[in-house]
Amino acid sequence: MSSNIRAVVYENALRVVERAAPQAEPGEALIRLRLAGICNTDLELMRGYKGFSGTLGHEFVGEVIDGPDAWLGKRVVGEINISCGECDLCRRGMRTHCRNRATLGLMNYDGAFADVFRLPVDNLWAVPDGVSDEQAVFAEPLAAACEVLEAGVIAPETRAIVLGAGKLGLLVAQVVRLTGADLTVVARRDRPRSLLAQWGIPSATAPDLDPGMADVVIDCTGSAEGFATALDLVRPRGAIILKSTYAGLPEADLTRVAVDELRVIGSRCGPFGAALRLLSDGLVDPRPMIEARYPLADAEQALARAAQPGTLKVLLIP
Amino acid sequence: MSSNIRAVVYENALRVVERAAPQAEPGEALIRLRLAGICNTDLELMRGYKGFSGTLGHEFVGEVIDGPDAWLGKRVVGEINISCGECDLCRRGMRTHCRNRATLGLMNYDGAFADVFRLPVDNLWAVPDGVSDEQAVFAEPLAAACEVLEAGVIAPETRAIVLGAGKLGLLVAQVVRLTGADLTVVARRDRPRSLLAQWGIPSATAPDLDPGMADVVIDCTGSAEGFATALDLVRPRGAIILKSTYAGLPEADLTRVAVDELRVIGSRCGPFGAALRLLSDGLVDPRPMIEARYPLADAEQALARAAQPGTLKVLLIP
Repeated sequence: MSSNIRAVVYENALRVVERAAPQAEPGEALIRLRLAGICNTDLELMRGYKGFSGTLGHEFVGEVIDGPDAWLGKRVVGEINISCGECDLCRRGMRTHCRNRATLGLMNYDGAFADVFRLPVDNLWAVPDGVSDEQAVFAEPLAAACEVLEAGVIAPETRAIVLGAGKLGLLVAQVVRLTGADLTVVARRDRPRSLLAQWGIPSATAPDLDPGMADVVIDCTGSAEGFATALDLVRPRGAIILKSTYAGLPEADLTRVAVDELRVIGSRCGPFGAALRLLSDGLVDPRPMIEARYPLADAEQALARAAQPGTLKVLLIP
Repeated sequence: MSSNIRAVVYENALRVVERAAPQAEPGEALIRLRLAGICNTDLELMRGYKGFSGTLGHEFVGEVIDGPDAWLGKRVVGEINISCGECDLCRRGMRTHCRNRATLGLMNYDGAFADVFRLPVDNLWAVPDGVSDEQAVFAEPLAAACEVLEAGVIAPETRAIVLGAGKLGLLVAQVVRLTGADLTVVARRDRPRSLLAQWGIPSATAPDLDPGMADVVIDCTGSAEGFATALDLVRPRGAIILKSTYAGLPEADLTRVAVDELRVIGSRCGPFGAALRLLSDGLVDPRPMIEARYPLADAEQALARAAQPGTLKVLLIP
């Protein structure tokens, strides 16, 4: 552990650097990376989102190499919000919204695109034996997909539409399908449409759908246009769940929200326990979404590949 | 009833016209106006909102002079959405959202600023004896205020902020106060602040309030700026209830809604039964909000007065 490690650092530009291995602070574990996934947010950070500087990466599966005995040698995934435990929101059980939070690879905390990295022990989840690395690396985005159900507006008779069939939209679709809801995914590209067909999930293009008829529309487009499309598709007193984050402020028809008594519900990080159970039980299989695997040393090419429109999951192997 | 009646008609310009008394269609009652109230929406219609042409007015108390025997002579208020009863939303109990609806004095249906006007019997509510005309004329906006509670996000321990202390904001404040919630109303003008003080409701200006601390913010500003202020004041996982309707599309920070997992809940027309009970029990007294009374013949002056910033309720007396 005294040897150098490689890290994928963004600091005005992207570089793979060699540096001293980090040390675990009290309450932290040191994790050796086994596999990492590239998220659209990583690409946005490189476009200046949040003014981030540091090691990228928040989707990972790794092995604990230093920390409390109970965790040593364990294969783990980890929640990405590092919370204080003491602010009003932490005390009310909203640790992902901690007012003093740092976020792995996103805000004031070095990320997981490195041979070895740190994370608080409180953030760790042991990966069940039956879950492979290539499944476990999806735990973080799958948890975010599960968070859609926490909104409490999707029931078995719900007419639900997922807008956008990218990496997150496809996971959300798989999760929503499990409720028995009447689900359609708005997808334009062939590859996601073929994956959805494999999973038995109908897909369509937005103009093919009846306006004003969906009970719930889940915006996974990642773009400002998603909200206007969602407004077209949702029925009065229906719900729009927002998973999209982006720079820029869309012109939003909030009067329509008032008049139609809509519910617009934001959704971000989700429950890892549920994600691991779905993976362990084989109820969600994200592996067909893997599009490419790159060595960590080739992170630049990997991120360039991930940035090509329509690319699904790109993995980094240390 | 064969005699002429007066009606306050907007058709590019506002006029008080004389015309033949309307006839009740099957299922309708003919109502003689006792008292009417001017709403901000009436003023917006005169600015071109919804391209409305016809008789204005949707806040009223009147007396049934033609219709089913059971209603004859009854003092009534009335729901303003005239629904088909047959579309999918009517069948699911959402008659205020009927896909084929007309709206009294707002959309494809002549309004209540007239000596005599029509309304479906299904829309009528009998006014309890103990409720005066000057209380009953508030039934419609008070029902809209009650609709805020239908959002299901206000509980006795809720830190709630009402943004805007105009006619609707003051009614919303009175309704929310009854839940025991920890309520503050953002108000700038002296008159609403003094009314709020009478009712024991704290008021403040927005910059005096801690940002990010409110559980629920209710936007009654009637302007596009209200949403940005609400975003500043609400805590993560809190709710913003939108009562404001206006022309124009604000630039809305929807990424903030997603990241902070906010709930943005639209709210429009509400339950008349609750409004009448609150008036009858004296739990809400809107009469101090009456600012002026004008004869129906002077509707032009009345609407001009109502359009002055900060004016509270202006009534029309036939």
